[in-house]
Amino acid sequence: MEIKIMRNILDRNQNKADEIRDILASHGIIMVNIISSPGAGKTTLLECTCQEIGKEFRIGIIEGDITTDLDARRLKKYDIPIVVINTEGGCHLDSHSISKVLGSFSLDDIDVLFVENVGNLICPSQFDLGETFKLAVVSTAEGDDKPAKYPMLFREAEAVILNKTDLIPYTNFNIARFRSDIRNINAGVPLFEVSCTRGDNMKTWYDWIRTRIKS
Amino acid sequence: MEIKIMRNILDRNQNKADEIRDILASHGIIMVNIISSPGAGKTTLLECTCQEIGKEFRIGIIEGDITTDLDARRLKKYDIPIVVINTEGGCHLDSHSISKVLGSFSLDDIDVLFVENVGNLICPSQFDLGETFKLAVVSTAEGDDKPAKYPMLFREAEAVILNKTDLIPYTNFNIARFRSDIRNINAGVPLFEVSCTRGDNMKTWYDWIRTRIKS
Repeated sequence: MEIKIMRNILDRNQNKADEIRDILASHGIIMVNIISSPGAGKTTLLECTCQEIGKEFRIGIIEGDITTDLDARRLKKYDIPIVVINTEGGCHLDSHSISKVLGSFSLDDIDVLFVENVGNLICPSQFDLGETFKLAVVSTAEGDDKPAKYPMLFREAEAVILNKTDLIPYTNFNIARFRSDIRNINAGVPLFEVSCTRGDNMKTWYDWIRTRIKS
Repeated sequence: MEIKIMRNILDRNQNKADEIRDILASHGIIMVNIISSPGAGKTTLLECTCQEIGKEFRIGIIEGDITTDLDARRLKKYDIPIVVINTEGGCHLDSHSISKVLGSFSLDDIDVLFVENVGNLICPSQFDLGETFKLAVVSTAEGDDKPAKYPMLFREAEAVILNKTDLIPYTNFNIARFRSDIRNINAGVPLFEVSCTRGDNMKTWYDWIRTRIKS
């Protein structure tokens, strides 16, 4: 019974996601579904990325949060369209919530739509939002074992950002183990090892996302 | 329809949790439901705590993980009964999964049963496991805004551990803001600001949990 209901929910989510994907494609928009644990650095990544590529590309942002608009407020200074979805306790965004806010954007004036999902390494990876691809973000402070323990997201992601590399000297994070686990789960996935707050190695990510938006 | 099903699931979970609570009470067992984001340090906290109080109290552990027994393997050296629950993709433990493994323990030989929930700041706080109380763990590396953004757990917790205080000098973590947000959400909750890996301030936690187990 519960399994059937869950399948219905996922089927309906998939149908709406497919509709969204068609709409975005017809407007030439790339949608990036950013997923991570709480505090891995999704908002800081968006701040840096808006700063770096905001003059070249027309960006839109959907901010998913359980409550508050704290993240959206941090992004206001970039003068780009931002819509907040408060899930009111819900642990992930779904395609219906995206569909409802899509009309708030002027879709002909957007090249890339970043969706910052709710901070959760598990549930968001099960719900297709109609995105072009999923981006996984993980922080070194979470430990090198996270891909092995939470493989679903890393299997589905088209790129992985390892953030907070500046903290590695102060932790027991083993980068060889992390890289090896990522390779075992998703052999060819691009892995960007960066520090968003310090700017370390961010150029590799900026170059990749530029190419990805143009493609 | 979905709301009704969700209510049924939660009602059935609550009934089983109440049964578990009665069973544990009849054996004089304290059960601690430990909840945090992935990588906040639940397993390291358990390692330190088993090391410190393992000679005074008879400990049992239930390890909730999506897949793998990596955490349980880290705890094997303490020679205490450990049972692993793999949720196979599930984002939280529920009372039925706890009920199924309770018989694996010799309940008359346990004073405190620690449950390490799946790494997730959202869903686990909605499912009563029959615990005596919930313990929230959060790492400084996640940022000072986590209580405000994910208030449910912090509202329900009987104690909060702020871990990885040794990383504060390398982050923009504002401890005054964190403390103030915790106070706004749960005024009287005990807050332990510690570093499990470095041992900083752990005595405050050990003293508290000792008293709590004896009470």
